[in-house]
Amino acid sequence: MRRDRLLVAVTLVTLLVADIHFILIPRLKTWYHLPRESCMCSGANGSWASGVPVTDLWLLNQTSTLVSIEQDSKLERLFRHPLYNIRLPKVGPDELLLQHDELMNYYKRKVTRWERLRKVYIDAAAALNITIPDHPVTFDLEASWLRFHLGINRYELYSRDDSSIDKLLLDMQTATVISADYTQDEKALKGACDCFQVVKPSGLHLKLALKLQDFGKAMFKPMRQERHDETPENFFYFVDFQRHNAEIAAFHLDRVLDFRRVPPVSGRFINLTGEVLHITHNDDLRNVFFTSPANNTCFFAKCLYICKSEYAVCGHPDLLEGSMSAYLPGLSIAPRISIPNPWIRAYSFTGREEWEANPLYCDKIKKLYPYNSGNRLLNIIDMTIFDFLTGNMDRHHYEIFTKFGDEGFLLHLDNARGFGRYSHDEMSILAPLTQCCVIKRSTLLRLKLLERSEYRLSDVMRESLSRDPLTPILTEAHLEALDRRLGQILRAVGRCVKKLGEAQVVVTDFVESQRGTTSHPTENDR
Amino acid sequence: MRRDRLLVAVTLVTLLVADIHFILIPRLKTWYHLPRESCMCSGANGSWASGVPVTDLWLLNQTSTLVSIEQDSKLERLFRHPLYNIRLPKVGPDELLLQHDELMNYYKRKVTRWERLRKVYIDAAAALNITIPDHPVTFDLEASWLRFHLGINRYELYSRDDSSIDKLLLDMQTATVISADYTQDEKALKGACDCFQVVKPSGLHLKLALKLQDFGKAMFKPMRQERHDETPENFFYFVDFQRHNAEIAAFHLDRVLDFRRVPPVSGRFINLTGEVLHITHNDDLRNVFFTSPANNTCFFAKCLYICKSEYAVCGHPDLLEGSMSAYLPGLSIAPRISIPNPWIRAYSFTGREEWEANPLYCDKIKKLYPYNSGNRLLNIIDMTIFDFLTGNMDRHHYEIFTKFGDEGFLLHLDNARGFGRYSHDEMSILAPLTQCCVIKRSTLLRLKLLERSEYRLSDVMRESLSRDPLTPILTEAHLEALDRRLGQILRAVGRCVKKLGEAQVVVTDFVESQRGTTSHPTENDR
Repeated sequence: MRRDRLLVAVTLVTLLVADIHFILIPRLKTWYHLPRESCMCSGANGSWASGVPVTDLWLLNQTSTLVSIEQDSKLERLFRHPLYNIRLPKVGPDELLLQHDELMNYYKRKVTRWERLRKVYIDAAAALNITIPDHPVTFDLEASWLRFHLGINRYELYSRDDSSIDKLLLDMQTATVISADYTQDEKALKGACDCFQVVKPSGLHLKLALKLQDFGKAMFKPMRQERHDETPENFFYFVDFQRHNAEIAAFHLDRVLDFRRVPPVSGRFINLTGEVLHITHNDDLRNVFFTSPANNTCFFAKCLYICKSEYAVCGHPDLLEGSMSAYLPGLSIAPRISIPNPWIRAYSFTGREEWEANPLYCDKIKKLYPYNSGNRLLNIIDMTIFDFLTGNMDRHHYEIFTKFGDEGFLLHLDNARGFGRYSHDEMSILAPLTQCCVIKRSTLLRLKLLERSEYRLSDVMRESLSRDPLTPILTEAHLEALDRRLGQILRAVGRCVKKLGEAQVVVTDFVESQRGTTSHPTENDR
Repeated sequence: MRRDRLLVAVTLVTLLVADIHFILIPRLKTWYHLPRESCMCSGANGSWASGVPVTDLWLLNQTSTLVSIEQDSKLERLFRHPLYNIRLPKVGPDELLLQHDELMNYYKRKVTRWERLRKVYIDAAAALNITIPDHPVTFDLEASWLRFHLGINRYELYSRDDSSIDKLLLDMQTATVISADYTQDEKALKGACDCFQVVKPSGLHLKLALKLQDFGKAMFKPMRQERHDETPENFFYFVDFQRHNAEIAAFHLDRVLDFRRVPPVSGRFINLTGEVLHITHNDDLRNVFFTSPANNTCFFAKCLYICKSEYAVCGHPDLLEGSMSAYLPGLSIAPRISIPNPWIRAYSFTGREEWEANPLYCDKIKKLYPYNSGNRLLNIIDMTIFDFLTGNMDRHHYEIFTKFGDEGFLLHLDNARGFGRYSHDEMSILAPLTQCCVIKRSTLLRLKLLERSEYRLSDVMRESLSRDPLTPILTEAHLEALDRRLGQILRAVGRCVKKLGEAQVVVTDFVESQRGTTSHPTENDR
């Protein structure tokens, strides 16, 4: 009997040890993505203690491209490459989107108004003898969102070595949510169902604007689809789900491509009860909450009240994962203009646009303002490449900051309809490139770099995405699709070069320096 | 070289033979569910040639319960059991739902009207110089649907040995479709969105009324969900999908339980273009058709035009599987009354009905007309057992033929929301049984029979469903759930008997004969 027990004990211990050794430790290693053995290694700027949290390490890493913490990190190697270290000319005050004092006044006005309203709510609650959650706001001149907004300039949304971006990602992951509401574009509908406007089906109004304790603001898009699920083949692009992981992955891809035209996005688990229902002051929003048969907290699209609870999203029981996208400065202080994409699709079941039938469509566009001069068309090609890599067919408009005029960079907003299918490359997205046969030299060089095994796009994306708290963000099949699509783009450029010659296809937008840190942008640069 | 080829040939032949022997033949055997070796065996009524098609064999089987074609068929054994051979008293003309002459006149009027309209369409098409599909109707006094309608009587929708039922199933699978339209209840909405009526969410208006060449009519419900997919745990019962396979399985289950209160249902592949789009005369229906990005023919709910093409169902590229439910006689010649289920659920997110909170609810119901006399309550219990087995929570109303008055049997219509979850038994569906603690003796005896391994419910259901052209209809997990739920029902009855004694719980509704073919129904029989 005792021997039996010993045998059982030995077996269990063996299993436990095997489990720890083969399952648990490798998994922990994958999570941390940090070779613990080499934690003490030091770079040019000094050594780092192994106890520093990973996020902070990476944050610090970003401040100096020379520091090599992770010897075998393809992403670090990529960001150290000369192509990723071309310096912009010094940005003058007029080239910044916002003036410091103007933004601070705006911020103060907002905080004052908030404090006044907060007092009203607290008094009203006290009169009714109920308690409401009360989160005092912090007025922080060093807030990461403020620094992000102040850094936006005519060349980029944020600079490569801007540490406030990593701080902003961290804040969006962890900061207390003090208020939740519908987004402005949904409020504009005033609760009306917008079923006849095809471009923005209203059945999907599940995104929320969340205000953080330091008055930063993020747009929350909840998870709607499992990461391994593909968009059904019969779905039109304009009714496809919005995917939170596509929003996150698009931010990382945009940075890996060195475009930096996507506002920072991070994953986060939101407590639907504590961080939305209990703190919103919007009755419409409160009224779309319900408890599901499985006792989970859910909310649904306000347009489709009652019948459409199958459209709802639900927490488990309260926690719901989603993407947090940093807000750009408000339109009142930084107006933007929204311009229809010349390669817009027909948002109907049967319609076809001219570009789909006319292979000489680009010749027509090239003659039209604003595509007939400057680099607007080259910027469209950059956007095309970005959208083809993600598989996003829903780029009906693009936006630019009014302040920067026709030469402003294109904002790559709303990327949640990318990464819907990994098994299919939608070649029609590449039409602007294949029809116009032009591309920026800087973009092409970076794409070629990302094709090389030392910097392979899927590898640097996997590494970059592993820093998000909701990792894994993309399945391996989606990462493989990125490499395959990169090959498609380079082959398309190759066909153009063969037909028209490199001089006509590849447009020089900068002069490469000898080794890394300086450059001389020509007028074609961004 | 020649030797190599020989080797390759021998290998291939060996593989082929092995494939045929181990894979193909066993699979064919499973499909046919017929031990070919014993095909020549004979029963009391003579021997059957092995060349007779399976459907016909089964059809013929039904005509004599003594014939034993399938020695090891549990289903045949079940149908031969004395409990399944209790004869009803001779049905008098007044006990039939329809009079022969009345139905024939109705039929003739319909055909005449059809022919007149057909002529108008053909003339109109000729004037416009277009051709339209023209399917002449056959006026057949022996049509299976006519015989089904003529057989409906105060005890049952069809008798056990009615060969017209198998003929009707076959006709619904194969007969030419001559017309397609919305169903009457959808037309009653006149295209208005019924989003505020919670009971019947209008987002699911995808069922169609199809008219067959012999003027039979079937309701087509298209496939919406894969057979292995479970209803999401956060879905309320009233927004759950309608499942074509649930509709088919419910018909078979109802017959296996010997209730015969579900109109015949068969699976069928419908060509959406040829059998719906091209032959409908309803413009509203034509207008909800579109071609998907994957070049499949699709149609969607008319209420949700444009935005909601994600609600569409699509063929591959034209063929779409679905259920075909035989229509009951029209309401003008055989009116029915629809009565709210006393155990109706609250069709809202938060509401609770009295029966959910009050364990003595049945005492109240028992005192109310029509549950205070006759066998209406026992019929409700039968329906409860049927719904619990399928997992259907959506039984808000039940229907009876007005002609048969309060003693008419309950029709078990609309079963498409059953079989949504195999991993969960919804005990609340059993509330009428657990609260009232009564059950018909005949029902209980059949349930006990189906619990025995010689007749196991899952086995007879698997066998019965294997005759449908869309087999497999239910996954093994759903079949296993049937056995598990049967156990739950019998345990619930056991608890009642323990508490109240058998005499009070088990209500005798027939006196069993010595051996099989006669019985003496008491006033409690159906």
